[in-house]
Amino acid sequence: MSNIVDVCLSPDLIHLFSLKNKVVVIIDIFRATSVICTALNNGITEVIPISDLSQLNEFDSNDFLIAAERDGKIVDGFKFGNSPLHYHNNPHILGKKLVLTTTNGTRAINLSKNAAESVIIASFLNITAVSDFLKKQQKDILILCSGWKGKISLEDTLFAGLMLEKLVKLGFKSESDSSFLSRQLYNDSRTNLIKFALQSSHKKRTENLGIDKDLKFCLQLDIFDNVPIHKDGGIVLI
Amino acid sequence: MSNIVDVCLSPDLIHLFSLKNKVVVIIDIFRATSVICTALNNGITEVIPISDLSQLNEFDSNDFLIAAERDGKIVDGFKFGNSPLHYHNNPHILGKKLVLTTTNGTRAINLSKNAAESVIIASFLNITAVSDFLKKQQKDILILCSGWKGKISLEDTLFAGLMLEKLVKLGFKSESDSSFLSRQLYNDSRTNLIKFALQSSHKKRTENLGIDKDLKFCLQLDIFDNVPIHKDGGIVLI
Repeated sequence: MSNIVDVCLSPDLIHLFSLKNKVVVIIDIFRATSVICTALNNGITEVIPISDLSQLNEFDSNDFLIAAERDGKIVDGFKFGNSPLHYHNNPHILGKKLVLTTTNGTRAINLSKNAAESVIIASFLNITAVSDFLKKQQKDILILCSGWKGKISLEDTLFAGLMLEKLVKLGFKSESDSSFLSRQLYNDSRTNLIKFALQSSHKKRTENLGIDKDLKFCLQLDIFDNVPIHKDGGIVLI
Repeated sequence: MSNIVDVCLSPDLIHLFSLKNKVVVIIDIFRATSVICTALNNGITEVIPISDLSQLNEFDSNDFLIAAERDGKIVDGFKFGNSPLHYHNNPHILGKKLVLTTTNGTRAINLSKNAAESVIIASFLNITAVSDFLKKQQKDILILCSGWKGKISLEDTLFAGLMLEKLVKLGFKSESDSSFLSRQLYNDSRTNLIKFALQSSHKKRTENLGIDKDLKFCLQLDIFDNVPIHKDGGIVLI
């Protein structure tokens, strides 16, 4: 029997889905899960996702890189935020652990980490590696989009559409209306994914923050071959 | 300044939207809002939407038509359910009041009736009449899709896409990612709305219930010219 893949387009809809025995794939294209993939593929040994800024006090900045983003900006008092370019090809991060809190993505991770069979972190940057990994698991899959403060986001839905297309080709069944509309949307974007995705409200919201290079970085396909997994409170490469 | 139109794709996301001073347009294409439009345009004088089956006891069946649907089926013990064909061209309903409880649509109505400036009931059957009415209100609009038990539905999203297209042409601004994806989806369906919409999971879910004729009825454009509004606990034509 085929395994099923479904998509939850907002963390605020997660109560409608059973996570039991499922592999949950967390998505926050702009930018948390793109950052996590980039950091781990550039020498960070572990990412510790934190929901609340107040929890950051528990971590000594001599032992950890600490990164905090809210509303698209680095939180005052921190050096690192939610830009993948801070981590890509940066030799200073080699071998370090990263504590990360972001507006949306870390919430989605923490919402699902206890209920699911396992929690995987994905982005366009490693989408094929994640799809191939999921095929081997022989489990039902739920793609969980982080969205923006609970609202559905274009870029996460597009990612879900492409991952659904890949998983259906790999033999998974996809039946829900959310899956259908995500796949439809992705297929509309095929001729120019970057131009299509940059119609996102995230781009308009962050227009004055100078993060266009970040957004384009996050829309690259398959620049990394590794799959991050959540284990014992931290995220590491499998 | 232009008024804004936005869409909430599930009642379970309604807490993310402010309803204050807004006109809320309730959608449940399969089938509650299609039924309400049909009943009122065929001689029912008022529809009273009820969320819980238990509340039906308060109404005397000598004075009211009482209709109850759960999971696509007429609830045991009731004669009327959620089929627009029960009401269309049925002379026996003339001048009567209809008490209606359904799986999804009546919940969306009751969720928004106290918070919004006004609550309008729409369906493909009266979409142009509703759009023209909204233009005259000069208020911000929220389209609230009922979905299926909280999950996003294809047919409601398609409706939202078409209504957004119409309202943008009438001068409204539409900015959110949910609006963008609804419009995109509607535009994908333009060449054959019925075929496209019948890919909905609602059709699969109700395949054994023989309601295909209902679904096709609900996908007709503009067979009615009137706009139902929620007022003092009941829905009447404006």
